[in-house]
Amino acid sequence: MPAPFHPTRAFQAYQIFAANTDVGKTILATGLCRAAAMVAKQKNRDVFYLKPVQTGYPVDSDERIQQSKSKNGAYSFIETAGGIHSPVMSGTPQADFYRPLRLPSVLIGDSRLGGISTTLSTYESLALRGYDIPSILLFQNDRYRNHTMLSDQLTSSNHAKGKYEQTLVSTVPAPPTPLEDPVKELESMRKYYEQLDEYMQPVMKHLDQVHEARFDRLAHMEEKAQDILWWPFTQHQNVKQTTVVDSAYEDYFLTYNTNKETQAMEPKEMFDSCASWWTQGLGHANPKLTMAAAHAAGRYGHVMFPETANEPAMALAERVLENDKWASRVFISDNGSTAIEVALKMALRATALRYGWSDSTPIDVLGLEGGYHGDTIGAMDACSPNVFNKNVQWYKPKGHWLQAPSLHISKGKVHVRVPESIQGSNAANVFGYDSLDAVYATDQRHQNQDPLVSVYKSYVRSQLDGLRQQNRHIGALLMEPVIMGSGGMIFVDPLFQRVLVDTVRTEGADLLGYKAQEQAKGWEGMPIIFDEIFAGMYRLGRRSASDFLGVKPDIVGYAKTLTGGLVPLALTVTKESLFDIFLSDKKENCLLHGHSYTAHPIGCAVAGETIDTLESLARVDQPTLWTSYRDNWKSNETWSMWNPTTIDRLSHMENVSSVMSLGSILAVELKDEQGGYNSMISKNIIHSMRHADFDQGHGAGINLFARPLGNVIYLMTSQTTTPERVRQCEDILFQCLEQQQRA
Amino acid sequence: MPAPFHPTRAFQAYQIFAANTDVGKTILATGLCRAAAMVAKQKNRDVFYLKPVQTGYPVDSDERIQQSKSKNGAYSFIETAGGIHSPVMSGTPQADFYRPLRLPSVLIGDSRLGGISTTLSTYESLALRGYDIPSILLFQNDRYRNHTMLSDQLTSSNHAKGKYEQTLVSTVPAPPTPLEDPVKELESMRKYYEQLDEYMQPVMKHLDQVHEARFDRLAHMEEKAQDILWWPFTQHQNVKQTTVVDSAYEDYFLTYNTNKETQAMEPKEMFDSCASWWTQGLGHANPKLTMAAAHAAGRYGHVMFPETANEPAMALAERVLENDKWASRVFISDNGSTAIEVALKMALRATALRYGWSDSTPIDVLGLEGGYHGDTIGAMDACSPNVFNKNVQWYKPKGHWLQAPSLHISKGKVHVRVPESIQGSNAANVFGYDSLDAVYATDQRHQNQDPLVSVYKSYVRSQLDGLRQQNRHIGALLMEPVIMGSGGMIFVDPLFQRVLVDTVRTEGADLLGYKAQEQAKGWEGMPIIFDEIFAGMYRLGRRSASDFLGVKPDIVGYAKTLTGGLVPLALTVTKESLFDIFLSDKKENCLLHGHSYTAHPIGCAVAGETIDTLESLARVDQPTLWTSYRDNWKSNETWSMWNPTTIDRLSHMENVSSVMSLGSILAVELKDEQGGYNSMISKNIIHSMRHADFDQGHGAGINLFARPLGNVIYLMTSQTTTPERVRQCEDILFQCLEQQQRA
Repeated sequence: MPAPFHPTRAFQAYQIFAANTDVGKTILATGLCRAAAMVAKQKNRDVFYLKPVQTGYPVDSDERIQQSKSKNGAYSFIETAGGIHSPVMSGTPQADFYRPLRLPSVLIGDSRLGGISTTLSTYESLALRGYDIPSILLFQNDRYRNHTMLSDQLTSSNHAKGKYEQTLVSTVPAPPTPLEDPVKELESMRKYYEQLDEYMQPVMKHLDQVHEARFDRLAHMEEKAQDILWWPFTQHQNVKQTTVVDSAYEDYFLTYNTNKETQAMEPKEMFDSCASWWTQGLGHANPKLTMAAAHAAGRYGHVMFPETANEPAMALAERVLENDKWASRVFISDNGSTAIEVALKMALRATALRYGWSDSTPIDVLGLEGGYHGDTIGAMDACSPNVFNKNVQWYKPKGHWLQAPSLHISKGKVHVRVPESIQGSNAANVFGYDSLDAVYATDQRHQNQDPLVSVYKSYVRSQLDGLRQQNRHIGALLMEPVIMGSGGMIFVDPLFQRVLVDTVRTEGADLLGYKAQEQAKGWEGMPIIFDEIFAGMYRLGRRSASDFLGVKPDIVGYAKTLTGGLVPLALTVTKESLFDIFLSDKKENCLLHGHSYTAHPIGCAVAGETIDTLESLARVDQPTLWTSYRDNWKSNETWSMWNPTTIDRLSHMENVSSVMSLGSILAVELKDEQGGYNSMISKNIIHSMRHADFDQGHGAGINLFARPLGNVIYLMTSQTTTPERVRQCEDILFQCLEQQQRA
Repeated sequence: MPAPFHPTRAFQAYQIFAANTDVGKTILATGLCRAAAMVAKQKNRDVFYLKPVQTGYPVDSDERIQQSKSKNGAYSFIETAGGIHSPVMSGTPQADFYRPLRLPSVLIGDSRLGGISTTLSTYESLALRGYDIPSILLFQNDRYRNHTMLSDQLTSSNHAKGKYEQTLVSTVPAPPTPLEDPVKELESMRKYYEQLDEYMQPVMKHLDQVHEARFDRLAHMEEKAQDILWWPFTQHQNVKQTTVVDSAYEDYFLTYNTNKETQAMEPKEMFDSCASWWTQGLGHANPKLTMAAAHAAGRYGHVMFPETANEPAMALAERVLENDKWASRVFISDNGSTAIEVALKMALRATALRYGWSDSTPIDVLGLEGGYHGDTIGAMDACSPNVFNKNVQWYKPKGHWLQAPSLHISKGKVHVRVPESIQGSNAANVFGYDSLDAVYATDQRHQNQDPLVSVYKSYVRSQLDGLRQQNRHIGALLMEPVIMGSGGMIFVDPLFQRVLVDTVRTEGADLLGYKAQEQAKGWEGMPIIFDEIFAGMYRLGRRSASDFLGVKPDIVGYAKTLTGGLVPLALTVTKESLFDIFLSDKKENCLLHGHSYTAHPIGCAVAGETIDTLESLARVDQPTLWTSYRDNWKSNETWSMWNPTTIDRLSHMENVSSVMSLGSILAVELKDEQGGYNSMISKNIIHSMRHADFDQGHGAGINLFARPLGNVIYLMTSQTTTPERVRQCEDILFQCLEQQQRA
């Protein structure tokens, strides 16, 4: 929806919705506009009364509105046609069509018999779409007195809201009986409208106050946030400006910030190109997810999980196991970090029991250098030491981490960079491939004896042998398949991870010198944990990142896009053989993990709805949004939402070291390898993306809310972003990179 | 709501709601009943068509329905009067009044102009109250064709749901124009109804199928849950039966389980007396919390938190700081365990910097024996070793834990049990007090030199001195004020915790031999962390558990009731002095913790609404639900929802060792001290509470979903439980304890 309609302090805009047809919407809207006109006259403002045509798009000149906004301000009322669910021409219901504007709404209530219900239901339908409704207007009806009941109901349900979110219920006299004589009728209505002014003035006053309070609040938030919030992973000292997010829809934040020149809060649409910390899957404020959440809340609230079953949790577990056929058990927790701690508790116990390690044996994990598994201390301990975790007093690395070869596209060519430690310093450390598809054809590379197979195998063998010589006890292999996200969007050569898993399974126990005290059952060598918190559930275009490797883990963790980008929830999915070892007649032998809100029905219901939607998008037997992306890449497996031509062009840029892309991720490695986490180059580019004016091309009028990751700039869409919007982001990225190149 | 209306496989019951008045509800309901009667006749069943009187309560004999249910079954249709928000006599809207039954609903849609909106809004209002709507019925109207649009909309929004949750939209011919001649009119309507039968048969068939599918699903869940779920903290081997929770409302679960005799799934209402792992605050499926969640979902979804501000998060932070005036910063995370890990990261860094400890210094916490702080490994490490955590491979205790004196009521007397290690073995270890009020008058006890002040102080001093001698580095005092929940509902003498905090602050650094490298600012000795995850936010009747101690912490964690029992969210609240030490020009010096869904707007909005409701309940300037409880205890501070006479009576029982109660908690220590976590006595009592038939008294007809905690039986209500329901639980508790006593 177009920017001209977004309110500013001087520009008030309202949506007028009706609870029903025939409740006098036009009469009441007209009355309200008259009152607005009187106020406007005093302040030398304009009034727009916009009646949308069938497309849903309001009819007036954007320019005219823009001019009024920038002059003395204006009032704008956008009337809707029919009820809130009546479709515009595209078939979208009005309440959804106008939602991107999220204008404060005047609801024309129904004063007739039954009108309490229709008015309140309409109110609820608007509220669950995120609308604020400062005013309900309806005709006086002393027989039914609906307004009293409405007022009571809304006062009691509004009491927690800020002042500017309160709903005022007002009545006005009903219009006179129509007269046959047109002259008399005109006169009668003229008198009626004059009479209405008296009733509408307090409504306008309330709207004015609410509007002022809203902008006071926005300004207050911008100023106050840095004083009372403690943001995660944020160096507060470096934050120059708080972005006030007033609302969000699909890919966009609607933000407000102070314009340095005018000192006024100004609206701006920002593409959420960090996918809200990689959670975004199905778009912000997706009405289906809202309804799934609301239904679960209304059916259960939260219910105790141990020893019980409820529909959303069961349906989710069944749905996940339908795909993860290698697994049979689902453990639910709150976030990716807890999912990994749960996985570690499962795996370490299993290994300790199989190899007869005592309670005092220090057990380590095997992982990859640069991997990341979460922020709780147990998950941190499973990561190699780095500049971040060394600052955490209780962090104590418990593992051995291998170097990993990574994938890059430079100057249009795909290649694997193999670290010297793997290859030995005398050999070439860059291996070229024809295409991404060729690199991700892991099974084929494995079968066809890609020369790297033996290179990787001997590296892994020598590493495991080295661990045996140090008498180390390795309890699990834990890694992020395909991509190490927090480590800097490092795409790992899938063949390496495949060879690693195979070698650990087939030769691991022997190489490490471990003797099993029981017959191997269910898992070999050590439990393999795949951390798919970030990369699973279609982030890379396929349901599981393990699909790219051609091997399955023994334990996998999911979170982030699992709930489509709405609420925290995580899964740890595993096999019966790992479950069985926790069975005992002693309570204390059970798995010791369980948050109070484990398997909260809202999260489970939202995850169920999300998976279903993602599976629909992933279908190959019928056209979906993803079809054109897959066609671009000529593959249903190795594809991205970003354009291949974009990747190519980026890979040739002077200030770009390399590029990679898969699914909804685009990662650009800048030539600033020394910059690390305090890279000024990426900081400057991010700053432009967020704040510069882009007047031309697809990106005109918007900005990107991007975040840096060291010297890597990444952009990430949701799974439902359209090609047009991808192009929008690409355009802005090019503009910023080119500007930096020139600088 | 009464049990007779809950469906069984043989007993189908439906609610009939209308989208509007004048849409032919009675005609369509009558038509449906005729069709039901035809089916019923074949199966020798009954049909009930219940029209509620003004109270809302349907008119028919419960006994008659009960008989039909147990014979061959029956169909029951409960019609409502007016719209779904029309109030019953008590003022409760119909949709809320009938919600405890949560009957599958037939929605009579509106086929007129505007009817799409009113029908869909009504559908949404019912859905967000947790209703399933298997059928929408409306008159044919070929002009507006609302049914087509409704069907399209609902198919697309229902696709993720199970088959038995699908909505069938059906039309039937509109009734003929009324005739003046009553005989002819009768004949005309007779013909009309005959004609309707043809249209209603498929509807009945659909309802039959949905009903069968629902009961198949319930049976499937009961059977399957133990095969695919991995419950937290549960020894699966000991679970004999999965409780299938079909829905919940206020204090109750509506559960289904197989009746061993009839082999049929049978409904049972169970009081959620474990407060769903201590989360329940404002009742299950509270419509206000649902709306708060839905509005936030519809306004934002989730939005990236770092460097941004949004209304629900800001409002929550401001609201919390209004009460915690000693604090100025709010960090948000996902659950109690993460809140504590965050607190530890803050505190340990602060202490290490102040005293100049190197990165390699092993830092410990000071805590209380038996305390519990969460399930992530970092939080576990802050707890003393016990039978549970020793089974976790990466658990490594990092602390020194003091013995704590505890509060008990035995034989009607309040006393403090002081462990020998505190008091020395020659002195008396039990100290009597006149009342709970007297024990919790911590300031007074402190000022008036309660003899325990010096006992406690010398114990703490000697412990700190001992730590100095061992050259230990203590980074924080971490404890649960007032009550150690998971440790076994141990009520700690508040005076002890008061003396401990005071001593650590005033003499801690000296006693421990630490030399500050900077001027002490903001905190003294070491940061004091209060873990109020369980006890804060009015669980004990006061906002903060620290109110009972008369001292404030430097860091506090909140969760559980913070969100009223709906979704996971946690806060770590602290002072500016602790925030400041993370400021630096280096990104990596920031606080390294941040889950992807940090400050998800749903959680923040629900927490805001919860706090507001709790603060209303806590008011002392006007009568609230809590007034009668406070009156019972003759105190606005030290009070409980449980009756003082109950506490007294329990404390005199032979099989009871002691009792304690505060706020909504009742803890009964059984005489089975050897039983520990596998106590058979408490297991048997819990089993009776869950499954026995209670025919008499307040508890008639329901059961308690309680959970054991070693040899302690606890019952916990929500903060909105009524006195009548408390009495219900007390009655059942007495019956079970008496039965056990006799056995």
